[in-house]
Amino acid sequence: MEKLFGGIEAGGTKFVCAIGTGPDDIRAETQFPTTSPDETLARTIAFFRTHSVDERLAAVGIATFGPVDLNPQSEHYGFITDTPKPGWSQTSFAKVIEAELGVPTGFDTDVNGAMLGEHRWGAAQGLENAVYLTIGTGIGGGALVNGRLLHGLIHPEMGHVMLPPREGDPKPDGNCPFHGNCFEGMASGPALEAKWGLRAEHLPRDHPAWELEAHYLAVALHGIICVLSPQRIILGGGVMNQTHLFPQVRKKTLESLQGYVQHQALLSRIDRYIVPPALGKRAGVLGALALAQDALDSRRRRSS
Amino acid sequence: MEKLFGGIEAGGTKFVCAIGTGPDDIRAETQFPTTSPDETLARTIAFFRTHSVDERLAAVGIATFGPVDLNPQSEHYGFITDTPKPGWSQTSFAKVIEAELGVPTGFDTDVNGAMLGEHRWGAAQGLENAVYLTIGTGIGGGALVNGRLLHGLIHPEMGHVMLPPREGDPKPDGNCPFHGNCFEGMASGPALEAKWGLRAEHLPRDHPAWELEAHYLAVALHGIICVLSPQRIILGGGVMNQTHLFPQVRKKTLESLQGYVQHQALLSRIDRYIVPPALGKRAGVLGALALAQDALDSRRRRSS
Repeated sequence: MEKLFGGIEAGGTKFVCAIGTGPDDIRAETQFPTTSPDETLARTIAFFRTHSVDERLAAVGIATFGPVDLNPQSEHYGFITDTPKPGWSQTSFAKVIEAELGVPTGFDTDVNGAMLGEHRWGAAQGLENAVYLTIGTGIGGGALVNGRLLHGLIHPEMGHVMLPPREGDPKPDGNCPFHGNCFEGMASGPALEAKWGLRAEHLPRDHPAWELEAHYLAVALHGIICVLSPQRIILGGGVMNQTHLFPQVRKKTLESLQGYVQHQALLSRIDRYIVPPALGKRAGVLGALALAQDALDSRRRRSS
Repeated sequence: MEKLFGGIEAGGTKFVCAIGTGPDDIRAETQFPTTSPDETLARTIAFFRTHSVDERLAAVGIATFGPVDLNPQSEHYGFITDTPKPGWSQTSFAKVIEAELGVPTGFDTDVNGAMLGEHRWGAAQGLENAVYLTIGTGIGGGALVNGRLLHGLIHPEMGHVMLPPREGDPKPDGNCPFHGNCFEGMASGPALEAKWGLRAEHLPRDHPAWELEAHYLAVALHGIICVLSPQRIILGGGVMNQTHLFPQVRKKTLESLQGYVQHQALLSRIDRYIVPPALGKRAGVLGALALAQDALDSRRRRSS
């Protein structure tokens, strides 16, 4: 019997839940606003119960906003920890879903979920090392290293590496409340608005904001390439809907690296090195489905 | 019969070769200056032939300066590629050693070798995720992710992430010929000398150079923590012989992160999070021995 999986994309403003086996086979899907934890998790559980009466789910995956506790040995494993989102700090999430639905439950960051979805079905298929960055209200990154997701001590926080301010930046100190001129403080949607007084989607294409934005993205990618040496970088998130950014970011990343990283993937195929997500806006919920598949595989390995 | 391994630490100024099984059991060791590739590799091969007549080596490991080609599918696998070191560009290294000595040969960067040595016998024992940085004539980094060395597209070049210059820096543009104010251009031994006109070892302990050096190290570690989320960071290399840097770097790294990464390993045990190499100057050659062990294991897995 074919296995059905459940995916939960848990965002700060909305939840997306889906049942299926992959991008071409979604049997049911819903979305609703993120309100209180009690109400939101209750709606999530109700969706999966209603839609899996006949076809029992084999596993569920959660790709969530954070920060989160991903350490399986921790008593707070599966929690959303100290989040600025009102009401959600110290919310037990994965264990509640697992207990209520009675199936193996995968749990990871939204960006690691998207990275895994792109690896299984999208722009990182067949690669062992890749990075997925979302450039939107915040900036976050997920990474695949030697074919597996990177967690480490907690999980990456790629939006918070420090960037050198460039001359002519109207707000060189950035707007991250923690770090000022970090990547997120210099290049997120709110950082763009703080610099130029207009929301990103209202900035015309020939506005100098975009040249500066491409510059900061390039310097950040330069750093990520030097630390992680990915085989491909996928750029998603609302700001990257400005698709004219891609050629500028590619050109400026090469200029910033100054030929130091000698590999044809960069030197002659940069248009296939820095790319948009193949799954588009569906990377999140499909990533959650991929996390569900992995949770089942991992459960099987442990019990065999 | 106990297995003996050979280790080659190939540096830009000297080679160190050793035969043994680990830090407490080195049967023979030698070092000689790095001259031409032909002469240097001939001395290397002669050392292992002379000292392994009775006890045949099971494998050899090479931890080398670079850049190098680590892709086993590449026709230039095991080469030193485009290095500024005269005479060494496009030198076939691993294949020559493997052919001449007739044993499985591991090949990696000097810093990945040191990372592996510290994982097997030193400061990263029992960890799955760690970083080894050398701060000396150059700056380089090796990383362990999910228990395995990180290679990716080529290998990390952690010394070349860009850093924001700080006010009061006498040379805010840095001295890296490729990137100016990258980590290496701001904080290597030669960068210190370019800023202050004195070699690092001649700068007195109360010189303002050290406060600024600790600042740049901290901002770079902040970035590496945000991208790789290591469980521990090991700082080696000549500049770190100034051991008074460690407490300053720890304090400034916490200040730079501003409490954003919530984990007790950082918040309350930073003195065990940013540490010197437990193997000290022997991390390199012992790392090469560890690479030899892994080369044998990997050969066995492939043939079983």
